[in-house]
Amino acid sequence: MSAYFENIKPIQYEGPESDNDLAFHYYNPEEVILGKTMAEHLRFAACYWHNFCWDGADVFGQGTFGRPWLKDGDPMKRAVEKADVAFDFFSKLNVPYYCFHDTDVAPGGDSINEYVSNFSSMVDVLEEKQAQTGLKLLWGTANLFSHPRYCAGGASNPNPEVFTFGATQVFHAMNATKRLGGENYVLWGGREGYESLLNTNLKKEDEQLGRFFTMVAEHKHKIGFKGTLLIEPKPQEPTKHQYDYDSATVYGFLKRYGLEDEFKVNIEANHATLAGHSFHHEIATAIALGIFGSIDANRGDAQNGWDTDQFPNAVDELTLVMYEILKNGGFTTGGLNFDCKLRRQSCAPADLFHGHIGGMDHMALALRKAAKIIENDFLAQAKEARYKGWQSDLGKAIDSGKHSLESLAEHCVSNNLAPKAVSGQQELLENKLNRALFG
Amino acid sequence: MSAYFENIKPIQYEGPESDNDLAFHYYNPEEVILGKTMAEHLRFAACYWHNFCWDGADVFGQGTFGRPWLKDGDPMKRAVEKADVAFDFFSKLNVPYYCFHDTDVAPGGDSINEYVSNFSSMVDVLEEKQAQTGLKLLWGTANLFSHPRYCAGGASNPNPEVFTFGATQVFHAMNATKRLGGENYVLWGGREGYESLLNTNLKKEDEQLGRFFTMVAEHKHKIGFKGTLLIEPKPQEPTKHQYDYDSATVYGFLKRYGLEDEFKVNIEANHATLAGHSFHHEIATAIALGIFGSIDANRGDAQNGWDTDQFPNAVDELTLVMYEILKNGGFTTGGLNFDCKLRRQSCAPADLFHGHIGGMDHMALALRKAAKIIENDFLAQAKEARYKGWQSDLGKAIDSGKHSLESLAEHCVSNNLAPKAVSGQQELLENKLNRALFG
Amino acid sequence: MSAYFENIKPIQYEGPESDNDLAFHYYNPEEVILGKTMAEHLRFAACYWHNFCWDGADVFGQGTFGRPWLKDGDPMKRAVEKADVAFDFFSKLNVPYYCFHDTDVAPGGDSINEYVSNFSSMVDVLEEKQAQTGLKLLWGTANLFSHPRYCAGGASNPNPEVFTFGATQVFHAMNATKRLGGENYVLWGGREGYESLLNTNLKKEDEQLGRFFTMVAEHKHKIGFKGTLLIEPKPQEPTKHQYDYDSATVYGFLKRYGLEDEFKVNIEANHATLAGHSFHHEIATAIALGIFGSIDANRGDAQNGWDTDQFPNAVDELTLVMYEILKNGGFTTGGLNFDCKLRRQSCAPADLFHGHIGGMDHMALALRKAAKIIENDFLAQAKEARYKGWQSDLGKAIDSGKHSLESLAEHCVSNNLAPKAVSGQQELLENKLNRALFG
Amino acid sequence: MSAYFENIKPIQYEGPESDNDLAFHYYNPEEVILGKTMAEHLRFAACYWHNFCWDGADVFGQGTFGRPWLKDGDPMKRAVEKADVAFDFFSKLNVPYYCFHDTDVAPGGDSINEYVSNFSSMVDVLEEKQAQTGLKLLWGTANLFSHPRYCAGGASNPNPEVFTFGATQVFHAMNATKRLGGENYVLWGGREGYESLLNTNLKKEDEQLGRFFTMVAEHKHKIGFKGTLLIEPKPQEPTKHQYDYDSATVYGFLKRYGLEDEFKVNIEANHATLAGHSFHHEIATAIALGIFGSIDANRGDAQNGWDTDQFPNAVDELTLVMYEILKNGGFTTGGLNFDCKLRRQSCAPADLFHGHIGGMDHMALALRKAAKIIENDFLAQAKEARYKGWQSDLGKAIDSGKHSLESLAEHCVSNNLAPKAVSGQQELLENKLNRALFG
Repeated sequence: MSAYFENIKPIQYEGPESDNDLAFHYYNPEEVILGKTMAEHLRFAACYWHNFCWDGADVFGQGTFGRPWLKDGDPMKRAVEKADVAFDFFSKLNVPYYCFHDTDVAPGGDSINEYVSNFSSMVDVLEEKQAQTGLKLLWGTANLFSHPRYCAGGASNPNPEVFTFGATQVFHAMNATKRLGGENYVLWGGREGYESLLNTNLKKEDEQLGRFFTMVAEHKHKIGFKGTLLIEPKPQEPTKHQYDYDSATVYGFLKRYGLEDEFKVNIEANHATLAGHSFHHEIATAIALGIFGSIDANRGDAQNGWDTDQFPNAVDELTLVMYEILKNGGFTTGGLNFDCKLRRQSCAPADLFHGHIGGMDHMALALRKAAKIIENDFLAQAKEARYKGWQSDLGKAIDSGKHSLESLAEHCVSNNLAPKAVSGQQELLENKLNRALFG
Repeated sequence: MSAYFENIKPIQYEGPESDNDLAFHYYNPEEVILGKTMAEHLRFAACYWHNFCWDGADVFGQGTFGRPWLKDGDPMKRAVEKADVAFDFFSKLNVPYYCFHDTDVAPGGDSINEYVSNFSSMVDVLEEKQAQTGLKLLWGTANLFSHPRYCAGGASNPNPEVFTFGATQVFHAMNATKRLGGENYVLWGGREGYESLLNTNLKKEDEQLGRFFTMVAEHKHKIGFKGTLLIEPKPQEPTKHQYDYDSATVYGFLKRYGLEDEFKVNIEANHATLAGHSFHHEIATAIALGIFGSIDANRGDAQNGWDTDQFPNAVDELTLVMYEILKNGGFTTGGLNFDCKLRRQSCAPADLFHGHIGGMDHMALALRKAAKIIENDFLAQAKEARYKGWQSDLGKAIDSGKHSLESLAEHCVSNNLAPKAVSGQQELLENKLNRALFG
Repeated sequence: MSAYFENIKPIQYEGPESDNDLAFHYYNPEEVILGKTMAEHLRFAACYWHNFCWDGADVFGQGTFGRPWLKDGDPMKRAVEKADVAFDFFSKLNVPYYCFHDTDVAPGGDSINEYVSNFSSMVDVLEEKQAQTGLKLLWGTANLFSHPRYCAGGASNPNPEVFTFGATQVFHAMNATKRLGGENYVLWGGREGYESLLNTNLKKEDEQLGRFFTMVAEHKHKIGFKGTLLIEPKPQEPTKHQYDYDSATVYGFLKRYGLEDEFKVNIEANHATLAGHSFHHEIATAIALGIFGSIDANRGDAQNGWDTDQFPNAVDELTLVMYEILKNGGFTTGGLNFDCKLRRQSCAPADLFHGHIGGMDHMALALRKAAKIIENDFLAQAKEARYKGWQSDLGKAIDSGKHSLESLAEHCVSNNLAPKAVSGQQELLENKLNRALFG
Repeated sequence: MSAYFENIKPIQYEGPESDNDLAFHYYNPEEVILGKTMAEHLRFAACYWHNFCWDGADVFGQGTFGRPWLKDGDPMKRAVEKADVAFDFFSKLNVPYYCFHDTDVAPGGDSINEYVSNFSSMVDVLEEKQAQTGLKLLWGTANLFSHPRYCAGGASNPNPEVFTFGATQVFHAMNATKRLGGENYVLWGGREGYESLLNTNLKKEDEQLGRFFTMVAEHKHKIGFKGTLLIEPKPQEPTKHQYDYDSATVYGFLKRYGLEDEFKVNIEANHATLAGHSFHHEIATAIALGIFGSIDANRGDAQNGWDTDQFPNAVDELTLVMYEILKNGGFTTGGLNFDCKLRRQSCAPADLFHGHIGGMDHMALALRKAAKIIENDFLAQAKEARYKGWQSDLGKAIDSGKHSLESLAEHCVSNNLAPKAVSGQQELLENKLNRALFG
């Protein structure tokens, strides 16, 4: 057990009326909603990355958190200290899952051999920690963006040796994920994009990515990994333009390389908004395209144009997100990860708990409210009424492919069709939604 | 001949030194560049829509232009007046092509029968005008967004009768386009999108669109139309979210319905920027995906979040756009259309010429500069050098599918690979580009 | 009484549990909260402009609402019909206030004389309507942006005759506002801005605006109008750049012309977001600068870059807005106007009620929740604790001007100051806020 | 002399036709344009900050540049090495000026005493370097944003001891600037803003800033510093909202505290675009408000919402910026600084030269083209014609304050004014501008 959070007791559900800021007010893991416990519905995970590998630095200033395990020292000893404090945190937070990048948990070392050796040792540590705590791995991933070798990308790098180095990391990270019982494996193309079209061969880089993802799918089957492969879309930052721009773009990429049955998407709320979409839109789109997988719940700031990675708190939009997921049957292997960053001023150890407690409580509120909507589903009813014309003979004939432009033109003229606009009832539905949220 | 532009003489090329504002300074139609005339390269078109069907109104105010043919009166007489002035304009402007929506050229009428009859009559007029003037049709299209019946979309409408009405218009517009020798047929999904996810069935609407576009492709083959079918991406406006968001999204849609060989994209500069991309990006992406077709050159305002549809004047970006097109072999059936709006204050008849002359001259400058770059192609050289590692044994083996993650991991470790970052030379290339633009 | 809304009964408060969509669920006008009735706190107004002067047209399509009083006909008869239906609506909606532009209520006519005469007649009608219904005027204003003469601005127009025409309208609109007992007079500079810096003399136009606003203030005192003069900031649209960009910009303008005690701001939520701010920010900023006056509650769409003017429904942000206003002592002459646009598909007569009922209920929810926060004001407590250092000797000495850079440098060195970062507790406060919103 | 740039020879003007990438093609320092040398017009400066204090790290990855003087080691020795390489660079680049933050040039140390001592020693070094090289100081400034103590701001910090620490740094940085002959002193409020309104007292923080800036102005006069005090506006980043949002906001702030004659603005191109403005707008606005001072020329990326700080290369907009500055009489104490960041992939030593050579050449091109426009100033002529109505009796009477709303209303009616819209000629002016740029 780490001393860092020694003053924080395990977080318990105490209900909405509790004044205890270090308790859950809405997330009651064992409470059953629509036939499953809240824990089963929400499948919460916390991450290594921003929580234990970042000291609060930003582009304009040094770290503010003073995390002891990030100070200078023997890298492997620090990695073990980090694991101690991370698992202490995950356990006290009572999340069932955690996530990591390879280089979050183990020092990258000075050579590929050191990388392999360090990572292997730390996977042993993680395995032991999982056994001790009961924590499970939601997903593993490999960091192909922080080391200078990746400054022009990993799989899309102009240098095939960098591609190879990246493939090596993914090989080991996938194997480790399988060994640790991970339920998914994630690929985030942080530098798979371009800084300038002047020096970029778009088609070549796209084909490299296609080749890389194909190898990933092949390796999954070869090693018998049963989890889901996830691509995490992001439109930009750090690169000017990232190839996995949004769910629709990823879908097109997967179709191009025949990979649409091999990968799903891990949608991050802040990446959705950076791409010009709402979080709700990205979830609904991924579901409509059949590629919805998992969520990173960190939100952005509506006035800032970069990835602020804040803890989610917009219960209204989160409710619609949970509504879509519930209507789609809930998560399968995916879950709700918080890849969030504390604000740089939130430098007290307890702040890491406050952020996550809030995120979990707000998602739990969203689940409760979405379930309430579904019990008397005015949204489904409104949609059904709106599209009911497609149950007519004309609608069915069109849907089943019996009509051509010509036959429709004949039908239109011979029936002198003159369809009128009907109300879309948007304001009414917004009102009903708010009554469901606040009533 | 219309009296409206009687004080404007046909626009001639007078060269860069001319002080005549009503002349071309850079667009010399018959001048040969890289083996083709400028007219053949640029394939300019002007449109009916903003030029002859809009009087300068915006959301906050009435029309300012006072176009006589838009005043009240007998609709078919006004349509003929409009055709007179439009063809007078196209001819004086010396563009080889024009474009139209069905309801630009003919009154929509009070019923589907009136629509069919009005449109048919006006197609006769257009055919005659083409014969008189030598103008050709770059593309035709149908307006499925202005009439109230389309307020919830055309093909994606919740009412199959609206779908049918839209199909009827497209049937007639495609037939007219074929009859008039049109080289392309365009579909812009102005209201194919959603205002609110609360009342929208995304999957159903997507499938309706898939069905509609499939019928369009089938009809093309049935009538033997040899032109290209074009989809015009736009991310939003008028709807909150439009399904044809950008080129990558359209590509995914086409793949989903097996239509990727049937449609290409008509890229509008302003739609690119509304989608969070540069114009250059959308062109380069469409080319990389094999779906580049044609261009609407109207640009946006970098500080305004709506479709300002201004005449293009950023010669630096336009040069890169022309560079990509030239490197891709130039336009085939596509061309450069100006779907631009005059500023609302530009209420003098000559302003319509100034806008187009500028647009054409700026594209002509871009062509000249792109051709100059290609003659000593430092961009191609820089890319070739940057990716040369892929000509190595390792690179070739990866590209040809001979490697797996595992074999790459072995290769990496056994060769102790430690690739280093090399300069991407972005600043240098930007400097060279500006010297090519301004030297 | 107009027949248009004949099927709609006056809207009543029925409480949160009511299933009646045409009732208030949270707005209970006579209910007392923090010592005032909800009606007194919220001071709701509905407007003429989007509700009765717009038929649902947008840039891409014709009107969809089919409002009878907007059809062709004798302009003055139509104006009376419009007043009938408007006051029927205002009354049934149970708002205490309404608002108008001069040309909303009376036809502009073909000359300045007709304008004066038409407006004068219609002010008689309004006066009678107010007497009949008990409705009051929150503010009047003049439309200096719709007529083509204003395409280059009103007060900032390059033509002094346009300035003069605008002054004439404002003269009559101010006089009418006084006569009708208006509690404020608003100026929105819809076209007071520029389309292009190439043809704009910024300094000259700024001085024209300064002169115009000075005349407005002088006229107010001359006629003894006791209401508040309000400027409505907006950053752009219709113009590329509008001079009254945001509250901070308006403050600087007022200071420049010595008008900071003569004008306050009317903040529109959607204008705040178009300016890159949150609605909360603009309210808090205007209060901090001492120029907060009134509100147009219409919100934007976070993914769209134009003024969508939707009914407000983000209860979380609205609560913070109401919190700021309550902490500042509440509205004085200002109020909560809905200058909202129905969605174009919301073409049923009842939709106009749904939109307003929602807006009023959501603001009422916000009032209730803000009042609850104030009763146990964790936000005020957190701020007090955070700034408590300024109650120290050092803090007081700085605040009272007793220190110079030099004396502070001496103090710092002699005391070897080494202040440490302390937590800003943002996540904790966000959690507490959500518990107050949803608990 | 530092070895780092030993392979780079001093950069010389070689003219547009030179193929030498390490030469100026347009910047010819001694060439006379409009009566002054290009060096006198442009007053170029390079900075310490991004060039010598940053190793290419971003939020997602480690440094890529491998600058030797940023490696671990004795801080004061490293500071001297840094000064060696910086002045070698400045000299070879042939800029007349440089700029620095206090903590760029000297280690901050572990206490205020160490700070004072380190900085004092390094100012001695800089003084000697200036004497050796002839370089001059364009401005000095103090870094009140990088150290964790400033995570909640400097002057606007909730802790008066942080305010005091910041005042101490500014005291020493101003004194050093004076001693080194600096021509300006800059204040950039990197963390003077808020992360959340929930924990922020806007009015209190504003008053703290007012007090701080007042002390700065008093100290300037006390020590007899003859340079200009400059505020650098920025709307956000690192904070969610920065108080010095844009030029108009800074103007209002200065008026509020009676400081409008004490401070001018240092406008950064990228800060302008982040604020929703064009660079041109911010320059023109600052000039119109009488507070234009100096420039940081680093631009942003139109598709990215953060401060990319790239080298300027949009010659069209830069020409308009130089046009405004020339029309305003040119720089006085201000100049053109490049506070730019190399792209992270630009890791070759020569790239630092390429970036600056490009920036200087593009500004030089802009100067040449602006001067050419001024020689036959169609922009000034167009503005003069457009506003000529204000030379009429009516215009003069309004401008001179002889009219009231009432007298204008009488004038309008008695003269039956009916002003018509006239063309603003925007497209024509855009065409003429491009001909001036490319002709």
